[in-house]
Amino acid sequence: MPLYKAPLRDMQFVLHEMLNTEETYQQFLNDQNELSRELINQYLQAGADFCENELAPINQNGDQQGCLFDHGKVTTPKGFKEAYQKYTALGFTSLTADPEYGGQGLPTLLRIAISEMLCGANWAWAMYPGLSHGAMRTIEHHGTEQQKQIYLSKLISGIWTGTMCLTESHAGSDLGLIRTKAEPNADGSYAITGEKIFISAGEHDLAENIIHIVLARLPQAPAGTKGISLFIVPKFNVDDSGNLQDRNKVVCSAIEHKMGIHGNATCVLNFDGAKGFLIGSENRGLNCMFTFMNTARIGTAVQGLAASEISFQGALNYAKERLAMRALTGAKYPEKNADPIIVHPAVRSMLMTQKAFSEGGRALAYFLAQHVDIVENTHNPEQKIHSDELLAFLTPIAKAFLTESGNESAKHGVQIFGGHGFIVEHGMEQIARDARISTLYEGTTEIQSLDLLARKVLKSEGKLLNNMIDLIDQFIATHQSNPALVTYITTLTELKQQWLSITQHISVQAQQNPEEIGAASVDYLYFSSYVVFAYLWARMAQVAEQKLNDGTQEEKFYRAKLATAQFFFEKLLHRTKSHAASIQSGAKAVMQLDPDDFAF
Amino acid sequence: MPLYKAPLRDMQFVLHEMLNTEETYQQFLNDQNELSRELINQYLQAGADFCENELAPINQNGDQQGCLFDHGKVTTPKGFKEAYQKYTALGFTSLTADPEYGGQGLPTLLRIAISEMLCGANWAWAMYPGLSHGAMRTIEHHGTEQQKQIYLSKLISGIWTGTMCLTESHAGSDLGLIRTKAEPNADGSYAITGEKIFISAGEHDLAENIIHIVLARLPQAPAGTKGISLFIVPKFNVDDSGNLQDRNKVVCSAIEHKMGIHGNATCVLNFDGAKGFLIGSENRGLNCMFTFMNTARIGTAVQGLAASEISFQGALNYAKERLAMRALTGAKYPEKNADPIIVHPAVRSMLMTQKAFSEGGRALAYFLAQHVDIVENTHNPEQKIHSDELLAFLTPIAKAFLTESGNESAKHGVQIFGGHGFIVEHGMEQIARDARISTLYEGTTEIQSLDLLARKVLKSEGKLLNNMIDLIDQFIATHQSNPALVTYITTLTELKQQWLSITQHISVQAQQNPEEIGAASVDYLYFSSYVVFAYLWARMAQVAEQKLNDGTQEEKFYRAKLATAQFFFEKLLHRTKSHAASIQSGAKAVMQLDPDDFAF
Repeated sequence: MPLYKAPLRDMQFVLHEMLNTEETYQQFLNDQNELSRELINQYLQAGADFCENELAPINQNGDQQGCLFDHGKVTTPKGFKEAYQKYTALGFTSLTADPEYGGQGLPTLLRIAISEMLCGANWAWAMYPGLSHGAMRTIEHHGTEQQKQIYLSKLISGIWTGTMCLTESHAGSDLGLIRTKAEPNADGSYAITGEKIFISAGEHDLAENIIHIVLARLPQAPAGTKGISLFIVPKFNVDDSGNLQDRNKVVCSAIEHKMGIHGNATCVLNFDGAKGFLIGSENRGLNCMFTFMNTARIGTAVQGLAASEISFQGALNYAKERLAMRALTGAKYPEKNADPIIVHPAVRSMLMTQKAFSEGGRALAYFLAQHVDIVENTHNPEQKIHSDELLAFLTPIAKAFLTESGNESAKHGVQIFGGHGFIVEHGMEQIARDARISTLYEGTTEIQSLDLLARKVLKSEGKLLNNMIDLIDQFIATHQSNPALVTYITTLTELKQQWLSITQHISVQAQQNPEEIGAASVDYLYFSSYVVFAYLWARMAQVAEQKLNDGTQEEKFYRAKLATAQFFFEKLLHRTKSHAASIQSGAKAVMQLDPDDFAF
Repeated sequence: MPLYKAPLRDMQFVLHEMLNTEETYQQFLNDQNELSRELINQYLQAGADFCENELAPINQNGDQQGCLFDHGKVTTPKGFKEAYQKYTALGFTSLTADPEYGGQGLPTLLRIAISEMLCGANWAWAMYPGLSHGAMRTIEHHGTEQQKQIYLSKLISGIWTGTMCLTESHAGSDLGLIRTKAEPNADGSYAITGEKIFISAGEHDLAENIIHIVLARLPQAPAGTKGISLFIVPKFNVDDSGNLQDRNKVVCSAIEHKMGIHGNATCVLNFDGAKGFLIGSENRGLNCMFTFMNTARIGTAVQGLAASEISFQGALNYAKERLAMRALTGAKYPEKNADPIIVHPAVRSMLMTQKAFSEGGRALAYFLAQHVDIVENTHNPEQKIHSDELLAFLTPIAKAFLTESGNESAKHGVQIFGGHGFIVEHGMEQIARDARISTLYEGTTEIQSLDLLARKVLKSEGKLLNNMIDLIDQFIATHQSNPALVTYITTLTELKQQWLSITQHISVQAQQNPEEIGAASVDYLYFSSYVVFAYLWARMAQVAEQKLNDGTQEEKFYRAKLATAQFFFEKLLHRTKSHAASIQSGAKAVMQLDPDDFAF
């Protein structure tokens, strides 16, 4: 089993050297909240200690033991409960929460960085606090003062956990189809009835109460997405002082048998007139949910990045140890009876791909987290709009591409181990199985692609895309006279031009046939993702060049950063060519076959 | 669980209409062995009946129950033994074997077609007869008359099964490192001592004896691959009449816990002075093995094709049933509360990809099997050399690309199911887990790539590539005046030219730096695979065009074939662009980083 080691140096590179977090946040955080380099490093170290020493050691057993279901009760794998207790004791649940309810009021960026480590060390475990965070944010943004006093404070302290109950068996991507109903009670509460599936952390033994955030329909609500409301439904009813009362009428009737994330209970929850409380306005449930969804999607993107990182770590160690054949240029370790497989270009190519995805993914995820913080804290309305639009544009890219590239990295990790990669004890196949969920939940890759192209790009008539192009143009303008960056600048200049013309092409085609949008969407998402990565890798290369020019004790670190940037530009970025050509060829080849003629 | 349905119509299309099997085989099979269309169809139907009714129903339980290991004994999942008994009773084990030892002497092509169905219906089960076949072929080609009388006849009848024992814990891709030793006994036999791992079907309860084919080193054998010999080591010793005697000193000490293929026992075998018998000459074991390896690799390619087919079947059914959202051009089924997801271009695109991989993979696998039959049966020495060279060239392509595309198809199959794809009961994730082994065993994708580029293409100075180019040129010459095929002809003409110039480019680069070969190899394999698929899809399109021109009752079938060919050319074939560009960029970006500088 690859034992997780927090990539602290690289995290610090992104946080301090690329994103200049301390300086950036001085613009909008007040003195109490200042985010100094030292403070960040302290938190990262605390997170790394917890992840490496508490979470990583229980990851493999968590997969093999899984969750136990017995008459509505779920027992999590050995060590999960103790780890959760330590986690709350260390204050990680309250990191970014509102200080008025016991939170530490720290920026999202810090939570995302720590979340990367949690997911890398133990994906299934990390989902329990992950879901709680979703519930917290929803109540924080849309709950009444009383709801915050009762529920939020206990979620922040970690004494209770939370869930997000959206999916029903017939309604996943299409939430407009949900049927769970909410009928008003005389006391102002609601009776919630229906069945929800795929409820992660829906039942467990980590905490004394679970606060479900549930989508349901009021009587006479309009059909579709405009008739959905949002409710708080606690597992145990709670009095006004937050004391546990009787058991609410929500039971876990089964947990799913899944490909991976065995340590997290994926529950079927039956609501049978359970007492619930409206959050936000009637029929505006999906809007409330969307506040949460953007950050949830960044959270899922981080899971993908974590998969790239841990599969890279495992594969790198193995590739340095495993001996097979000689280097094509002759024995590199003649004293051994074969060379370590890292000498072989095909192995190295997979390792470099994992490395480029992991480090590039980190840059993208943290970049987004920084913009979340700007949106939530800045007093400058223009800056707020700018960051908000950038987030709207980049979130589907980050969600889809970091999870897809996480899956690709996990595949390479198994592949580098050869036949041993298929064997459970080495832990590489678990990474692949766990990671597989990430392109499915929180909106599939296909849903993200349609969101990007149809809603974000075309509906804004290119405005959201242009914001991103502006960032690229700024980078080009600032650095175009730097001879060390000429390849990056040239390529970025070509690619952003191609990005615009492809977008224009689709836009024109779509006026004739809206299916052109759907047929182009996934290729468009990949094309866009590689260009965004190219922008981030160029920025990282520029920082590394600067450091080397200025003189540094860490020459090897910065040279490795440059080598990885070069690998990304020379080996991975060419994938844009296939996607561009596929987009150009249009929808006909995709759509012409009648559904009845797919098989004979 | 998708219940396997043999794609008989498409199999017949490839066998009868594209490859003209009856006519082709008349050239070299004698009257007793004639392979009429009716005979083929009878066998296919028998195979389909067995696979659909006996194997498919025990596939999912086979995965969930797995093999049971207890003190050296392995119990296969429920129903596996009964299915094996029916299989032998139906005569499937003897299909292609030598009639002199009880075989039916039928061509390999028929076995490959039936093997596709076995793997599609139940991959783990199909490996038991699959490994037996490997042992059979090895003894048939290299065994003494006595060895054939004793062992081969029982393997052919299916009363015994066989294995191939190559891998050791430190020696997988690099067999030169194996340590298992063979010491001569006074009676002419050998005492075999060592530990073999990853021995599929190494122990089980399906048959009364297991014949292990084992690679081991004689005393004073040269180091490396030139000092390896091959031995027959039966589980139970056998007298000269083939009666079982005492237990030989080979025990199964453990079975592996694996990502997939749970129904097949992957064994650690300990040989402790086990009695063995030399096959072939001393120190020529790897050469004997290579006779087997080409067909074994085609067999693995077929597993990949089978994964594409079954994941396509499962996903297609689901995509027609599952309702979510409306088509971008407006409701297609307004009477339902949403449209089936097959209306969505992104879903359709995944289905078409699976379909193109499955049908294209079938064409390639059967095409290769036909050349195996030519090599083994033709009396024309030129034809034999031609087919042999074509096989040498196409086998690594088929092995690597059909397994990689099988994995891609399985991924799409899970993705089309959304979150439900991650749930065990639907069976889609099992396909992905089972398929994952196929790019690892029988030579990884990276090993196949190096075999293709270094050994087959460059070492032959392009001769083996030119044979393939000749086939493409013949197709172009024959059909270039057909206006219906102009797109295919134009694209093939460009691609084969690019293939030649890329090869030339690598060849020149490699003279400066041999690592250029390794760095280009995987991209080269993919590039080559897409071009080979383009050739086969163009041939299939030509046949379909012809049928439609001639008039047919099956217009929809042929139109679907054309639509799939078009999809392949317009959507998948563009992937060559990325691979070509990646090759052009050379080895530096892959190789420049010092192994110690991959992580900090």
